[in-house]
Amino acid sequence: MESASESAVVVFGQDGMQSASHVRRLIRQGLWTSHTSGLADEHVQGNVVILPQSLAGDFLRYCQRNPKPCPVLAVSEPGERLLPALGADIDICTDVPRYRVWRDGELVDEPTDIAALWRDDLVSFVIGCSFSFEQALMEAGLPLRHVEQGRNVAMFRTSIATEAAGPFSGPLVVTMRPLRAADVIRAVQVTSRFPNVHGAPVHIGDPSLIGIHDLARPDYGDAVDVMPDELPVFWACGVTPQAAIQQARPAFCITHAPGAMLITDLLNHQLASF
Amino acid sequence: MESASESAVVVFGQDGMQSASHVRRLIRQGLWTSHTSGLADEHVQGNVVILPQSLAGDFLRYCQRNPKPCPVLAVSEPGERLLPALGADIDICTDVPRYRVWRDGELVDEPTDIAALWRDDLVSFVIGCSFSFEQALMEAGLPLRHVEQGRNVAMFRTSIATEAAGPFSGPLVVTMRPLRAADVIRAVQVTSRFPNVHGAPVHIGDPSLIGIHDLARPDYGDAVDVMPDELPVFWACGVTPQAAIQQARPAFCITHAPGAMLITDLLNHQLASF
Repeated sequence: MESASESAVVVFGQDGMQSASHVRRLIRQGLWTSHTSGLADEHVQGNVVILPQSLAGDFLRYCQRNPKPCPVLAVSEPGERLLPALGADIDICTDVPRYRVWRDGELVDEPTDIAALWRDDLVSFVIGCSFSFEQALMEAGLPLRHVEQGRNVAMFRTSIATEAAGPFSGPLVVTMRPLRAADVIRAVQVTSRFPNVHGAPVHIGDPSLIGIHDLARPDYGDAVDVMPDELPVFWACGVTPQAAIQQARPAFCITHAPGAMLITDLLNHQLASF
Repeated sequence: MESASESAVVVFGQDGMQSASHVRRLIRQGLWTSHTSGLADEHVQGNVVILPQSLAGDFLRYCQRNPKPCPVLAVSEPGERLLPALGADIDICTDVPRYRVWRDGELVDEPTDIAALWRDDLVSFVIGCSFSFEQALMEAGLPLRHVEQGRNVAMFRTSIATEAAGPFSGPLVVTMRPLRAADVIRAVQVTSRFPNVHGAPVHIGDPSLIGIHDLARPDYGDAVDVMPDELPVFWACGVTPQAAIQQARPAFCITHAPGAMLITDLLNHQLASF
């Protein structure tokens, strides 16, 4: 597995407080094509879904019905590559480190630039990401093992069904972070402040109760160990719409690659509800 | 002005804790056609917007871009009169005390039943309402003058523009409640818990800073006095979409009459984010 933290030092320098626009520029130039956990860490990162306009209404309704996994931060005008609500210079075709291209629900490519695939009828959705509340958890003194180890967060498909809308349905996808009991309580308090980026956890403890049978084998991202004195804590995840897209099998769709997010100019602190 | 609190005692009896389904049944029978402030007060009430499917996507995008005034609680399937997400027996054609019918952006009728106007292409939106956090404010011991006086809350159009989407744009509409300073601070804390029903205030103090020139002349609802030791406190209001509809001038649209809400089976406590 790639050690992203070491690679990031090479690309971005020792300073962990990179500006969002600086990191985006390096991504745009193809110099960073991996996951974005820990990069420009004061800034909001987003999950990306790009769909033809004919499906955009159904998809927005799906997000409305499933606000915990699908908190919508911005929706573009059809055919518009820029996302001014999230940053002055954001170009959705170049500013995500790695994309996934889906045709008829099958993953067909993982490019680092989608300008050649752009169409006038495409609508971009940016959906909140748990990286925003991870900053708040770390500021509260809670250790996050995957960040310490420079890994992508572990993500799992659950047996919890989302609310359907049009062709979109499927399982709730969650992220898992192991925490000691006192930290679990604090984590509930801290993440409750961030309803726009998944908010409070959806489950704590026994993974089998939500249909997860092996924590060592995540469906997306990297496995992390759960120590004997820790509980696994599960939050709704912005990869959920990718599972819904696999279910809906749209003729054409583009998403980010799990963990490789769009970095915006918004500050995580701006998303706190109190 | 009608004294709603006295009338409500006649229709519903002395018990202020009416069940939502009981109140809805009386509304359905045409026995209550006025505003719903204080009725079934543990239950979530909602603003209603009904639009042809051709405009529903733009309108949902408008709501996404303006979550403080337009927090969407539910969206119906096209042509579907029932709203199962909000209550087992809710019929959007009969369960609002008074509707407003708009043609080409002009208010043309205020019926108490819209079954005769129903069409297979209509989509219903239910948008959160400040009555939900009013219960929390009263439980926190904060006095709400308009409730004490049995009046509708005072609503004002402001000079703050909402974010446009498709044909929908227009001013932010706010509700105003007068509070003493210590209660203002508490009110910010209490209402911050309810981001899905307008959340924290948008303004406190001088009304002219947000384009309101006379607190004695609200644009909707009833005026209430502001005492010398009080500050006016302003929250985003679910009548904002009605102002956007007047701007968009859709060929056909139905809304609730300001203050005369849809009463759902959801509990206000269910909407608290922490």
